Amino acid sequence: MSRKYLDVDPWKIIESTFDKKNVKSSESIFSIGNGYMGQRANFEEDYSGETFQGSYIGGVYYPDKTKVGWWKNGYPEYFAKVLNAPNWIGIHIKINKETLDLNKLTVNSFQRELDMKKGIYTRKFHATLNNGIEILVHIIRFISLKEDSLGAIEYKITSLNIDCNILIEPYIDAGIVNQDSNWEDAFWKNKSLTNTDLFSGIISETNKTKFEVCTYMSNKLLYDEKIINPSSINKSDNKLSHLFKVNIEKGKTIKLIKLGGYIKKKTKPQLNLFEEAKKLTKRFINIDFNELLSLQIRSWKKIWEVSDIKIEGDLKSQQAIRFNIFHLNQTYSGKDPELNIGPKGFTGEKYGGSTYWDTEAYCFPFYMFTKDQSVPRNLLKYRYLQLDKAIENATKLGFEKGAALFPMVTMNGEECHNEWEITFEEIHRNGAIAFAIHNYVRFTNDFKYLKEMGIEVLIAISRFWSQRFSFSNDKNKYVILGVTGPNEYENNINNNWYTNYIARWCLAYTKYQIKNIKNLYPEDFIKILKKINWNENELRLWEDIIQNTYFPYDDEKKIFIQQDGFLDKEFIPVIKLDKSARPINQNWSWDRILRSVYIKQADVLQGFYFFPENFTNEELEKNYKFYEPFTVHESSLSPSVHAVLACRIGLIDDAYKFYLQTSRLDLDDYNMEVEEGLHITSMAGSWISIIEGFCGMQIINDTLSFKNKLPNKWTSLSFKINFKGSILEVNIIENKINFIWKGESKINIISNDKRITL
Amino acid sequence: MSRKYLDVDPWKIIESTFDKKNVKSSESIFSIGNGYMGQRANFEEDYSGETFQGSYIGGVYYPDKTKVGWWKNGYPEYFAKVLNAPNWIGIHIKINKETLDLNKLTVNSFQRELDMKKGIYTRKFHATLNNGIEILVHIIRFISLKEDSLGAIEYKITSLNIDCNILIEPYIDAGIVNQDSNWEDAFWKNKSLTNTDLFSGIISETNKTKFEVCTYMSNKLLYDEKIINPSSINKSDNKLSHLFKVNIEKGKTIKLIKLGGYIKKKTKPQLNLFEEAKKLTKRFINIDFNELLSLQIRSWKKIWEVSDIKIEGDLKSQQAIRFNIFHLNQTYSGKDPELNIGPKGFTGEKYGGSTYWDTEAYCFPFYMFTKDQSVPRNLLKYRYLQLDKAIENATKLGFEKGAALFPMVTMNGEECHNEWEITFEEIHRNGAIAFAIHNYVRFTNDFKYLKEMGIEVLIAISRFWSQRFSFSNDKNKYVILGVTGPNEYENNINNNWYTNYIARWCLAYTKYQIKNIKNLYPEDFIKILKKINWNENELRLWEDIIQNTYFPYDDEKKIFIQQDGFLDKEFIPVIKLDKSARPINQNWSWDRILRSVYIKQADVLQGFYFFPENFTNEELEKNYKFYEPFTVHESSLSPSVHAVLACRIGLIDDAYKFYLQTSRLDLDDYNMEVEEGLHITSMAGSWISIIEGFCGMQIINDTLSFKNKLPNKWTSLSFKINFKGSILEVNIIENKINFIWKGESKINIISNDKRITL
Repeated sequence: MSRKYLDVDPWKIIESTFDKKNVKSSESIFSIGNGYMGQRANFEEDYSGETFQGSYIGGVYYPDKTKVGWWKNGYPEYFAKVLNAPNWIGIHIKINKETLDLNKLTVNSFQRELDMKKGIYTRKFHATLNNGIEILVHIIRFISLKEDSLGAIEYKITSLNIDCNILIEPYIDAGIVNQDSNWEDAFWKNKSLTNTDLFSGIISETNKTKFEVCTYMSNKLLYDEKIINPSSINKSDNKLSHLFKVNIEKGKTIKLIKLGGYIKKKTKPQLNLFEEAKKLTKRFINIDFNELLSLQIRSWKKIWEVSDIKIEGDLKSQQAIRFNIFHLNQTYSGKDPELNIGPKGFTGEKYGGSTYWDTEAYCFPFYMFTKDQSVPRNLLKYRYLQLDKAIENATKLGFEKGAALFPMVTMNGEECHNEWEITFEEIHRNGAIAFAIHNYVRFTNDFKYLKEMGIEVLIAISRFWSQRFSFSNDKNKYVILGVTGPNEYENNINNNWYTNYIARWCLAYTKYQIKNIKNLYPEDFIKILKKINWNENELRLWEDIIQNTYFPYDDEKKIFIQQDGFLDKEFIPVIKLDKSARPINQNWSWDRILRSVYIKQADVLQGFYFFPENFTNEELEKNYKFYEPFTVHESSLSPSVHAVLACRIGLIDDAYKFYLQTSRLDLDDYNMEVEEGLHITSMAGSWISIIEGFCGMQIINDTLSFKNKLPNKWTSLSFKINFKGSILEVNIIENKINFIWKGESKINIISNDKRITL
Repeated sequence: MSRKYLDVDPWKIIESTFDKKNVKSSESIFSIGNGYMGQRANFEEDYSGETFQGSYIGGVYYPDKTKVGWWKNGYPEYFAKVLNAPNWIGIHIKINKETLDLNKLTVNSFQRELDMKKGIYTRKFHATLNNGIEILVHIIRFISLKEDSLGAIEYKITSLNIDCNILIEPYIDAGIVNQDSNWEDAFWKNKSLTNTDLFSGIISETNKTKFEVCTYMSNKLLYDEKIINPSSINKSDNKLSHLFKVNIEKGKTIKLIKLGGYIKKKTKPQLNLFEEAKKLTKRFINIDFNELLSLQIRSWKKIWEVSDIKIEGDLKSQQAIRFNIFHLNQTYSGKDPELNIGPKGFTGEKYGGSTYWDTEAYCFPFYMFTKDQSVPRNLLKYRYLQLDKAIENATKLGFEKGAALFPMVTMNGEECHNEWEITFEEIHRNGAIAFAIHNYVRFTNDFKYLKEMGIEVLIAISRFWSQRFSFSNDKNKYVILGVTGPNEYENNINNNWYTNYIARWCLAYTKYQIKNIKNLYPEDFIKILKKINWNENELRLWEDIIQNTYFPYDDEKKIFIQQDGFLDKEFIPVIKLDKSARPINQNWSWDRILRSVYIKQADVLQGFYFFPENFTNEELEKNYKFYEPFTVHESSLSPSVHAVLACRIGLIDDAYKFYLQTSRLDLDDYNMEVEEGLHITSMAGSWISIIEGFCGMQIINDTLSFKNKLPNKWTSLSFKINFKGSILEVNIIENKINFIWKGESKINIISNDKRITL
């Protein structure tokens, strides 16, 4: 299934007709944000049709009391939810007493555009009101990439056929709720209001978590180049507004400039929020709107300079990858180590805007390769800052001596998920965090990070694994019982190959880095050991496990077995499944899914993706060809890994299919649910598909290696990598690869198996 | 742990001091009922201390909207809960304006007794009010075994030290709630009230399910042998009362007789509830209370004539088994095939008073051996009446062609449970239902039942199994993947030996009975086949499965393996577990429990319990000795099965320990939670422990066999069995067994391996 109603364009997302059915979907797709805050593309003016209102502030959450059918020991008390924040974009409009509401009037033409190059969202429509007035409306909106707390709207109305009276009333509204509230708790409490001609602000506090946020606005109305003052300023419990009344002549335009956004306290306790917001609006309210736009365009230009991937010959691919890169940049800026990348970013409520293993397993490479080193470092620091909570979490589950289990879902480091098969058993997430450390360190050689933070995280994770392995006398090997692997269509299984593999790898990698830190920073090393009460005796068990880990393997088929007993299933390939059964998670009961052979997302193959150096191409091919026919890709994270692996064994057409599936998932609404929000974390998979897939980029011992084979349609591809502090430009034309290196010192790279120096 | 505060007595439960901490526990233990309705032993007068109010009507439930953290396909929409029904026992009392409330005055002496022989509950106390008045109160209460809808209270107050004024106000209160409501829905709606001097009634209707119930009362107050009329009758939305005012002299006694109870509609739609209730009270209100008591005693005498088990030499064992038998009789009378045996009967809310596999696996033998044949037949009919729903249930899970999966928890045949690992996977329950059919038919030879109902149930169950088995090419056998066995401390396991065993047995047994029915009732047989669209081709797959079922077995240890992979666990016996870890379900997180070796209740051993004829004693001993050390018995259903098996291999001391654990579970409050209600279904396990354990009774091809070995303390044991329509009395003195047969025709029995004719 899919639903395609958007135009294809290399730099823009364009909706060129108005269809009420698409309003909620477009609200998701046209979302804007800057890593600090973001919002769905809700209309500024009233809209009485179906809509899903959403505006979010990074890191501001509410601990919603957990809802569960049957309580199990160890379940978390609450689920931290990113909050729907007060609305600052709203503008009530009446034209000769008729409310402007696209649900109720005749829309003659309509166009909205997200200009991804510029970071600007515009909407234009020509409409006839029920009272006969014809108007032209043109709105420009953006959230400043440079000024975290600043959003801006230019709202222009032109009366086309008669002179008329317009009431225009910009407002801020703090009377909002979350759709996904468990118990209909009030999430916010409003603490104080201020309302003057020049500035309005509401300070709200989140219940329980006590985040303080000032939602503000400042308005300027221009008619005939003249500033019009508000005729009244209005105030209720939850809402502040400025009411402007203007009589306009036929053919003339009024223009409202509205600035607004959020300033949050928590991190800066001394802040006077109203004063900060006033300062900000003073700085920007009198700047010409075009000037504001130029600032925004310049900021996005800097982003695109490194982030952009240029594809020629395939407009759909081109648009999709930019759409994905654009949203990844809107979601996470890397400035604040307390923020992370929620699966829906600032585009919806589901999954609570929380942090999942998606960050380390899927998103990390994008930020590492296209941003300053401080950005991936902040992503790693995020977990370091939450290490104590991860240790506490493991302690609750019976582990000891500083063992850490990072949560499946979290805002502040505490576990929020509450299905035992996931919360307690999908423990491979610990491995992905260690893998991201490895990925970062091999790429940057930032051993200082390792000394300051990473080694503690690695040791805590390895302590967990060493306790989580148990010894099977029957197998005479160490086993891991009772887990859920990346394929969540299997629960409480024994010896998930991927989990065993990454667990063992963590132990070996930690051991290796302990030695390095010991050598590089002997004094610091002693301090660390003391702090975490570690001594070398712990290595004995680790070593024993490393030497004696059990891996399910089929000698005849020569494949790794996803878990013990997997071969007992009925092997009917996905292709033979009746269409009415798909997606199986919407059509089958859970037991049927579990006992079926079907794989939700790469599982054994996730291991091949992470560790290409440890397997031969023949092994990869055997395993890929065994598992792919049974993979239903019902996680948005799945196709990209298969794309990369397909490239590695030369199945470019398959990879291309997976690439489109990932990159256009939201644009073409494959799952018919884009209205709930975008799949932000899987967007990183599109980047991976191209760079690690079609371009075959890998880090091999601190050296970048490329092995490219583009889809047939793609005549050329170019992109950049932030490598050793400088930019490496990669151009592929007709599958011939070329590099431009702008760094000061020389670098080695491997290009299609040839070592070259630039 | 345990909490012992009750006196030991052969026929009575006695609490002889007043301790507020014990009020809720005693409310459970002293519960009374008659299979149609029942209630906790709440005080009649006001009590401001901690209490758990509960009065229940069999089969009257409310479909409470399911509460679940993460919805899974196939979950039921609601959980049917037995309702806390309107209160008919309440009596407000004021003495010289002071409310009688045991929480607020000085209790000089207190005694309550449950006389199990007579089915009568009494309470006496001597107290000094804060106003200095000393009173003696004596209350007798019972729920009539003969008249389903009738309860009665005699409430006597004597002033010991001064003349005083007493207000006594019996009431009925329909403003009650369930403690375990998911969403705080209103469960009842009151439809009409009637209130006269002679009779009060409230007709309430359950929301959604529309059960109509009349809660009624009729009062008679006597002082000095004279009837006193109420001074007023009062009425509010939910409450009706009669207010009596009496001045009594020092040393004299007033006596209130209160009749009350419930009449429900649903099954008799023509009933005028008020008229029925009035008729009932008219019949009984003018009978002397002692006469009412005699009627009750006579009814219970009939019950005890067959049900009683007499143990000499061990008072604790004696009291316990009578307590268990008493409550089993209070919970289920066998008159109505729409009723069943809830795990807490009429003594609490938890487990919703619904039907579990407990009925067939544990309770069935008690009712079959001590009641008229119509009683076990009604238990089987209960499932037959719900067969359509069981087919519907299986269809939701993807099964077809008339396959049935009976629910894990139900009131009306629809599944109520909502944990996937239980609801969808604990499918062995289907097997227990078939086993009960087998048990009944071999004991009664009631092939008519089989023709009328049983064969359809068996075929539907076998159809389920035949579809639930899948073929493993790897093992070249039929396997059952993804189940939860009787040991619920393992979830989603493959090839649970017990499940595979009973599933295969169901197929074979159904096949066998199809042949019998075909021979016995050839014409009916054709009709049945038509009705359920069955043809003999289905047998081909069944036969193939029967011939090729996979059973996990360890050649070296010569034991059946609980499930695939079980031997990979760490085998640390329960005895070595730290005490702080017990019970593990309160101390460990679920994943830890799952990957541990610990067994909640008999699992492989459940199979040995059901099918002794299929295994040698050596096999039993090997398996028992392997599994028992890892069994934590954290289900109340577990020790009794182990008791029976321990007897079979001569471990009488162990069996005795298990017997006490089961039979005194509530009396000694081993789990410190008796206040929530009694463990009714596991009480049947006490009966099993004695009769099938110490007396070794088995049915072998329609013949009863005994093999007795009593615990050391027991000098004698006697009991009766309802066998072939007559009574077989069994007396064991000093381990010598003797039989008295009162039937007209001769019977064969096997006594300690010797065949004898009586």
